[in-house]
Amino acid sequence: MPVGTVGAVKSLTPEDLRTINASIILGNTYHLYLRPGMEVIGAFGGLHRFIGWDRPILTDSGGFQIFSLGKLNKLAEDGAHFQSHLDGSKLTLTPELAVQIQETIGSDIHMVLDECTPYPATREQAESSMRRSMRWAARCRAAKSREELCQFGIVQGGVYPDLRQASARALMDIGFEGYAIGGLSVGEKKSEMIGMIAASTEVLPVDRPRYLMGVGTPLDLIEGVNLGVDMFDCVMPTRNGRNGSLFTSLGRVNIKNQKHRLDPGPLDPACPCYTCKTFSRAYLRHLFVAGELTCLRLFTIHNLTYYIELMAKIRTAIENDTFSTLLSEQRALWQESN
Amino acid sequence: MPVGTVGAVKSLTPEDLRTINASIILGNTYHLYLRPGMEVIGAFGGLHRFIGWDRPILTDSGGFQIFSLGKLNKLAEDGAHFQSHLDGSKLTLTPELAVQIQETIGSDIHMVLDECTPYPATREQAESSMRRSMRWAARCRAAKSREELCQFGIVQGGVYPDLRQASARALMDIGFEGYAIGGLSVGEKKSEMIGMIAASTEVLPVDRPRYLMGVGTPLDLIEGVNLGVDMFDCVMPTRNGRNGSLFTSLGRVNIKNQKHRLDPGPLDPACPCYTCKTFSRAYLRHLFVAGELTCLRLFTIHNLTYYIELMAKIRTAIENDTFSTLLSEQRALWQESN
Repeated sequence: MPVGTVGAVKSLTPEDLRTINASIILGNTYHLYLRPGMEVIGAFGGLHRFIGWDRPILTDSGGFQIFSLGKLNKLAEDGAHFQSHLDGSKLTLTPELAVQIQETIGSDIHMVLDECTPYPATREQAESSMRRSMRWAARCRAAKSREELCQFGIVQGGVYPDLRQASARALMDIGFEGYAIGGLSVGEKKSEMIGMIAASTEVLPVDRPRYLMGVGTPLDLIEGVNLGVDMFDCVMPTRNGRNGSLFTSLGRVNIKNQKHRLDPGPLDPACPCYTCKTFSRAYLRHLFVAGELTCLRLFTIHNLTYYIELMAKIRTAIENDTFSTLLSEQRALWQESN
Repeated sequence: MPVGTVGAVKSLTPEDLRTINASIILGNTYHLYLRPGMEVIGAFGGLHRFIGWDRPILTDSGGFQIFSLGKLNKLAEDGAHFQSHLDGSKLTLTPELAVQIQETIGSDIHMVLDECTPYPATREQAESSMRRSMRWAARCRAAKSREELCQFGIVQGGVYPDLRQASARALMDIGFEGYAIGGLSVGEKKSEMIGMIAASTEVLPVDRPRYLMGVGTPLDLIEGVNLGVDMFDCVMPTRNGRNGSLFTSLGRVNIKNQKHRLDPGPLDPACPCYTCKTFSRAYLRHLFVAGELTCLRLFTIHNLTYYIELMAKIRTAIENDTFSTLLSEQRALWQESN
């Protein structure tokens, strides 16, 4: 899922997203709640009509941004008491409000409010935090009022496999349309992340989508699928794109590099996107070096196409029973290029 | 002509430019000479192929940017001795080099090197400067080697009508494919600008294009046509667009204004562009206030469409003999809204 923080995937339009076959995008509740705010989104009958996007939208609960962007004043049983990073205004996000906001946004999939367990955390801290997240998950489920919208629970439990599995079971007892794995990619080792994904997917039901939040590199995606994950979101393709760091079938390309200065070839000869079909590396490099806005969109289009095509390839490989070959190829490509 | 300073109209692609019916764009020789430089553009066989644009390109001579951006060390009979604003390197632009660079760029229309007479200037200063520009124009004509490319002379002469007419006649004696009016919109009164355009077009041949350089507002365009001008370029539609200042059939719109916060209507109900056909003022305002890149392109598309549609309307009105009605309407619209 491309990340469209405040109601736009940075530099792109809905038309661009349809062209690159994005089937769903992510919005950030924290950002949308602060700006444009619920009065505006409500007046338009939800985010889809406000932003002109008729395909699915998933929203997070806002909790993660309270921890990372806002000033958290108090984390209590009722909810998170924080100050807006925009104007310092004091706000409280409860599980019930998180659901209400997301139902006003009208996201096809909304997430329960959870506490993002810090890393590192002792077992006791991780368990206590996870238990609160599970109580909040139950309150979110009880607050859900729009039947037609999906709600996903979020597995927490730090880097403790048994806590992860206890969390997954607690969520399954409540019952959700899908299940996410949260609190990863926050500083833990890659092997710990892999372990936590495996512990979670071992328990989660196979007939419901599993969503690994905030992850990751192309290799993370295919490794995640290998462990049973279905959905991902990450700012990496869009943010890296704007920084001139591009994912290609030949590995990572830093477009600023002097060696592209006269290169008439495409950024990625295997890529079907507008950027690769239309422009030379030399021109793309020139635009980036000259600080031209045009290339931010071109690089975003390319990197998102790379991710979306990778996921399409993964689905095809699963259907054709060639997933393990694709996994080996991708491991070789990215382990050598990183 | 939309301005594509360093080989891109800021935030747009060639596809965008075709969609909004741009039939010609302008490139800045000074910028292109410094970056990406002639080695790169030459390797691609010219700017068209480098940037992926198959319609006409006009380039200025570079002189104007030497005065406004570079550090001019010495203005002598041979040419302009200056330092790059990018790295301070010392360079000399002669009339011959200006032609050679533009022929390497391969612009369909290139401009002679001229001295931009400062404002204010005494009659003596303006005459002396204009005479040098005329000597440079003759050298540019002599240096022209690519038969298939057009070269335009540039009328100078400050705010002195007789100098303007002497300049126009001097250029006609040399003979060019078209004639530009330069050195305006540099601080003189609007009435002085109008007077200089009128003085110039009175003398310039009717069967050659007349190009008013670096002008201007929508009203300037139609007033210019009223005085016999055929072509314009200006950064106003693109730059103002990026600042949220939008030209519409209802006058100027500052999209940041609070009154658009909940407005579900289009930016301009009379505009056929993607921005106006797709989004509400409320969403466009939100994107701008949130600092989202997406709106820079949307506003650029809109403002350029406004300018291009205005010129199309002017051509139709001339054909239908209704130009004076259109002129009155436009004067009423813009005099009241400015």
